[in-house]
Amino acid sequence: MTAFQPLRGVIAPTLTPFNDDLTIAEDLYLAHARRCLADGCVGLAPFGTTSEAQSVGIEERMEMLEALAAAGIAPSKLIPGTGLTSLPDTLRLTRHAVGLGCAGVLVLPPFYYKDVPDDGLYDYYRRLIDGVGDARLRIYLYHIPQVAGVGLPVALVRRLHADFPNTIVGIKDSSGDWENTAALLAIDGLVVYPGSELPLMAALELGAMGSISATANINAAGIAEVIRLFDSGDRTAAAARHETVRKFRLTVQGYAPIPVMKRMMALASGDRRWANTRPPLLAASVEEGRALAEVLAGEFDFRLAA
Amino acid sequence: MTAFQPLRGVIAPTLTPFNDDLTIAEDLYLAHARRCLADGCVGLAPFGTTSEAQSVGIEERMEMLEALAAAGIAPSKLIPGTGLTSLPDTLRLTRHAVGLGCAGVLVLPPFYYKDVPDDGLYDYYRRLIDGVGDARLRIYLYHIPQVAGVGLPVALVRRLHADFPNTIVGIKDSSGDWENTAALLAIDGLVVYPGSELPLMAALELGAMGSISATANINAAGIAEVIRLFDSGDRTAAAARHETVRKFRLTVQGYAPIPVMKRMMALASGDRRWANTRPPLLAASVEEGRALAEVLAGEFDFRLAA
Repeated sequence: MTAFQPLRGVIAPTLTPFNDDLTIAEDLYLAHARRCLADGCVGLAPFGTTSEAQSVGIEERMEMLEALAAAGIAPSKLIPGTGLTSLPDTLRLTRHAVGLGCAGVLVLPPFYYKDVPDDGLYDYYRRLIDGVGDARLRIYLYHIPQVAGVGLPVALVRRLHADFPNTIVGIKDSSGDWENTAALLAIDGLVVYPGSELPLMAALELGAMGSISATANINAAGIAEVIRLFDSGDRTAAAARHETVRKFRLTVQGYAPIPVMKRMMALASGDRRWANTRPPLLAASVEEGRALAEVLAGEFDFRLAA
Repeated sequence: MTAFQPLRGVIAPTLTPFNDDLTIAEDLYLAHARRCLADGCVGLAPFGTTSEAQSVGIEERMEMLEALAAAGIAPSKLIPGTGLTSLPDTLRLTRHAVGLGCAGVLVLPPFYYKDVPDDGLYDYYRRLIDGVGDARLRIYLYHIPQVAGVGLPVALVRRLHADFPNTIVGIKDSSGDWENTAALLAIDGLVVYPGSELPLMAALELGAMGSISATANINAAGIAEVIRLFDSGDRTAAAARHETVRKFRLTVQGYAPIPVMKRMMALASGDRRWANTRPPLLAASVEEGRALAEVLAGEFDFRLAA
């Protein structure tokens, strides 16, 4: 077993493009994965929230992971989402990802039943670890209570990491709650990826490993540059770059991010399939995509290459 | 195609018993299904919320439906839950249930993404219907916003029923919001099952078809008797019986219903496996199960036969 080495930098929860019949558009999917890495992502988190993961079937998720590996994208750069509501199906996706050699897995708490006891969530992860039964398993907890409806309290995260230090290695904190992120960053040895680049500088100062962010799908270069400057020791330059990246993010957040980023990809690539979403999400209009693209071009000199 | 004939009466969303390794205890599962029907249920809704459905894997759900049919329980009495967060997996479960000849399916809206547009939810059900492509499909919508985090507004239900009158035939309303239930009962031709027996008399007066209720797992006879008396024309006797049934329900609701009903089953049957729950739910203590059993015995002369 080699020493655990987390991915340092920005990671994209890659968008999932669909054909007009809503099957996954594998050609666009693979091209987008390559583009994110070329733009500065150190890794990919296929099937996060931004990927419309919970609208994608279990079989499809496994097929796409295999397609990424077959296309030459090293599984050591992949941290796929594998968390569903049931242990058997989450076990199936997790075993598959570990078998492929993925760097880790991003695991939501079981999110159907609400107001569940912490001990019940603990038991879920404990049984997941036992069920996978593979020393290569690296779990990143996924805290996004405003979407999932079930969160992971800091005390529970601390307990899980303390009891399974080599397996429950980190967390993606998408709560948008800085107090929560700061409390997680104080847990010894825990790898923390804020789920947005908004608090990136403050998080890096406290030891964050990077960011797993929706906007990394279109602005990986900008976010990566903040981290590069920070790591080079030039915090003034990093802070200045971060300010721009923050404004970019806040502008995108003014829209429904998944549909509007997909529409922008459609406009930039000339491939209309890119705009397709699966229900319950609706595609963004051409007008909306154009409006955001114009604002980003005007304010940030940004042009999406696709 | 024979004329559509909905099940009139009380339907149990059957509890799912687990062995100590948390696999499904098929022997207990089948025995409980038979008991519910013997106690007065006109049908079963395997894999509703009370069944810990979202903690059960896709394959397991299909296996148990087949086991019910193989055990001689007519699929014409079954309305299994088949709603997951993704269309491909929901399609898979739904096709399987229709293929078995089930009376209908109970379908949650896709419940991961929150605050989604009504048109997106409409599109989800439309694509489900197209994807199944079978005239035998009968969908009961499942409205339980306080758990799922995503509900089905009355206007959307009306539109779905109007556009697919032979397929979207009914709804289970577990909102606990009487105004909502009454509004649904005003939709012409829609079959409405309140998700609790609390408003049963008022609902029957407005044309409700019965009730799909958690407590039908232990009190089917009581609830069935209210409906029998109502149908016999003796509304005074029905109302009096309903008052007792209501108090029974309110007593059980003072506990976490799934774990405590399972613990009561364990105590009554002497089979401790009955108390097992899957994470994130925790088993109720023996003390809790005994306490509730004693209250029910004292106040309602109730003794669980198992």
